[in-house]
Amino acid sequence: MNLNNIRELDRNDPLAPLKAKFDNSNNIIYLDGNSLGRMPLSVLESTETLLKQQWGRDLITSWNKHQWIDMPSIVGDKIGRLIGASKGQVICSDSISINLFKVLAAGLSVQQERSIVLSTTDNFPTDLYMVQGLTSLLGEQHCQLKLVDEKALEQSLSRDVAILMVTEVNFRTGARLDIGRLTQLAHNLGILVIVDLAHSAGAVPVALDTWQVDFAVGCTYKYLNGGPGAPAFSYVAKRHQTHIKQPLYGWMGHATPFSFDAAYQGSADIRQQLVGTPPILAMQAVNSALEVFENIDMNAIRRKSIALSELFLTLLSQSEHTQCLTCISPYDAELRGSQLSFDYQQSYALCQALIDRGVVADYRDPSYIRFGFAPLYNSFEDIYLAVSEINAILKSDYHLQDKFTVRQKVT
Amino acid sequence: MNLNNIRELDRNDPLAPLKAKFDNSNNIIYLDGNSLGRMPLSVLESTETLLKQQWGRDLITSWNKHQWIDMPSIVGDKIGRLIGASKGQVICSDSISINLFKVLAAGLSVQQERSIVLSTTDNFPTDLYMVQGLTSLLGEQHCQLKLVDEKALEQSLSRDVAILMVTEVNFRTGARLDIGRLTQLAHNLGILVIVDLAHSAGAVPVALDTWQVDFAVGCTYKYLNGGPGAPAFSYVAKRHQTHIKQPLYGWMGHATPFSFDAAYQGSADIRQQLVGTPPILAMQAVNSALEVFENIDMNAIRRKSIALSELFLTLLSQSEHTQCLTCISPYDAELRGSQLSFDYQQSYALCQALIDRGVVADYRDPSYIRFGFAPLYNSFEDIYLAVSEINAILKSDYHLQDKFTVRQKVT
Repeated sequence: MNLNNIRELDRNDPLAPLKAKFDNSNNIIYLDGNSLGRMPLSVLESTETLLKQQWGRDLITSWNKHQWIDMPSIVGDKIGRLIGASKGQVICSDSISINLFKVLAAGLSVQQERSIVLSTTDNFPTDLYMVQGLTSLLGEQHCQLKLVDEKALEQSLSRDVAILMVTEVNFRTGARLDIGRLTQLAHNLGILVIVDLAHSAGAVPVALDTWQVDFAVGCTYKYLNGGPGAPAFSYVAKRHQTHIKQPLYGWMGHATPFSFDAAYQGSADIRQQLVGTPPILAMQAVNSALEVFENIDMNAIRRKSIALSELFLTLLSQSEHTQCLTCISPYDAELRGSQLSFDYQQSYALCQALIDRGVVADYRDPSYIRFGFAPLYNSFEDIYLAVSEINAILKSDYHLQDKFTVRQKVT
Repeated sequence: MNLNNIRELDRNDPLAPLKAKFDNSNNIIYLDGNSLGRMPLSVLESTETLLKQQWGRDLITSWNKHQWIDMPSIVGDKIGRLIGASKGQVICSDSISINLFKVLAAGLSVQQERSIVLSTTDNFPTDLYMVQGLTSLLGEQHCQLKLVDEKALEQSLSRDVAILMVTEVNFRTGARLDIGRLTQLAHNLGILVIVDLAHSAGAVPVALDTWQVDFAVGCTYKYLNGGPGAPAFSYVAKRHQTHIKQPLYGWMGHATPFSFDAAYQGSADIRQQLVGTPPILAMQAVNSALEVFENIDMNAIRRKSIALSELFLTLLSQSEHTQCLTCISPYDAELRGSQLSFDYQQSYALCQALIDRGVVADYRDPSYIRFGFAPLYNSFEDIYLAVSEINAILKSDYHLQDKFTVRQKVT
């Protein structure tokens, strides 16, 4: 496979024109969209409008005039379309951690004879921490975290489990769980299901309504390109909204926030997930970033994601120098999200050397290098050039220079 | 007092040059900085830099390169200077509601034989709701909200109160509590003190360290001009940081977030208040907005605030048409924050009519109109012109037209 064949792939790619909607001015090969997505150019313009026209000139009247007050729902519904949720079930707010706390507490409150939150040992740490924090409040008799290997999940479902809390796509390995199947098995045993879509939303087709998931959370700064630390989202299935209440009773979740009642009465819809005043500057960036997805089918994104990662594996397998990289992601593309991860003792140095040569991937302890594929702006040529650089670095031991091997602060 | 006298006040005002640091292009008289502060012009430039240079070009490397990861502490310490907190005790994150939840739960966890959270009946609703939400989690035996009139606060302090939770400046009336005195009285009875500084920070001199307050929270979108729904802040007195843990165990509050341990170990400093990934776009706006306060003494701001509000009252008292407005704020300037509120049956219409004539104040149910004074950008001439408009409207019943009296959605 030579560069001409690769460029042919790009010419035939129906999503290729979308790359121009992003800021690519740094001219690097960016395979870290699973950590922080590239900036859609529309964000520049919409942010300037927000600042100059809305905040700067219209000030407080913008809450109505520019629909600031409805922004969490507007953005939520846009995200909903990408994760298989019909309207009124997704809302944008807070961080993924805080949104998890809400749905964990809400779920446990209606599973009162059960206390176990079942999750996986290598779930993203903050997910596990939020359960531990809830335990610190409620005590182990009401909230108890049980961790098992991903492979042991199904056999660990039982009638004493209150909540199954899983991340669809594993942040280290990219392995993807079968959420539809797990949800069905869990429901058969009276278990509620919370799914973390951090590495799914905008990358793989998700079908929350079809799968009958109970609650989901996700972030907008990875494949949704909402910006660093952009507000997250929550999904609460319609059937739960009237009778399950999350406990962070904020004024924005009140049925009538501007009546300023002293007693909380939660909204009977998805807005009960809101807490404080919505962060408009950040949320408007998400709103604008989502424009790139308009009229785009998630299946088309998935097809390209798989093609990009398969090309990566194929090219890697054609070099003798890359054999030190042990793929820890599933080889079956259907079983992984939109990333590939490799175990290699010198991953940290390799990652630094790649950055030095204009290819951005990321490193995760103890010895993993992750490559994320963002079909909206990654081209097949990006993959070709990235693997060429990996190959050249490993062949020459370029990465074993002190400047790459000495650890710096890691994010 | 004529316009020439008024302009003389502006000429002699040492803070007058600061007005030019804000976007005043809409040419309105804005007396609603207690709801949403005006936009500092520096935010425009710093946001563009953040988008184009940091997110757009440097992408994920910005977490270290541009100190994104330290932003919550950097911004926190800048706010700390304005509220009498020495370094390492204030951090910027989340919303005021969520930050209240953290310190409420943290405080209750070390007051185990006590369950009462004492507050005031007309505290800002979200503050009361967060206690009610915590009760829904812990049960009344561990968290019980007790509400009393502001005047009855001191006599209601007793050894069964776990936490005194008060807002220094009342959002409706502008009445200001004596936090130093209340804290001393509370501490004498073993009560922890949480202070909400929403209407204080950037408007009145606050002395958290001197007063020995235990915890405080506040928002940055009012007198700190951080933008709509901008991230809030928390203060935790140094003496509590090692042994009191808040229960929203997020990865950013972990002692070593990037070791990705499965077990939470909270940071032993103010960073334990962090939960999820910090919202950089919004937080950088706050950081930039705070530049206006550099080298400014909060006492100078307070002096001008009092002068503005006293002028407002004086001018109002000179007209026969304004007698329908009953001031519900303390007449003694020392006893109020930086706002004046009036009870008047047609407040809603008056507020709409003022907006129509270029003066922005705000309305609060059932019949209050609030005027906020922001010494950084409000001039004495603003006050003169605002009162002139109020006078003209009330004299002519201009506000009693249908277009002003019919209620629209209120924010």
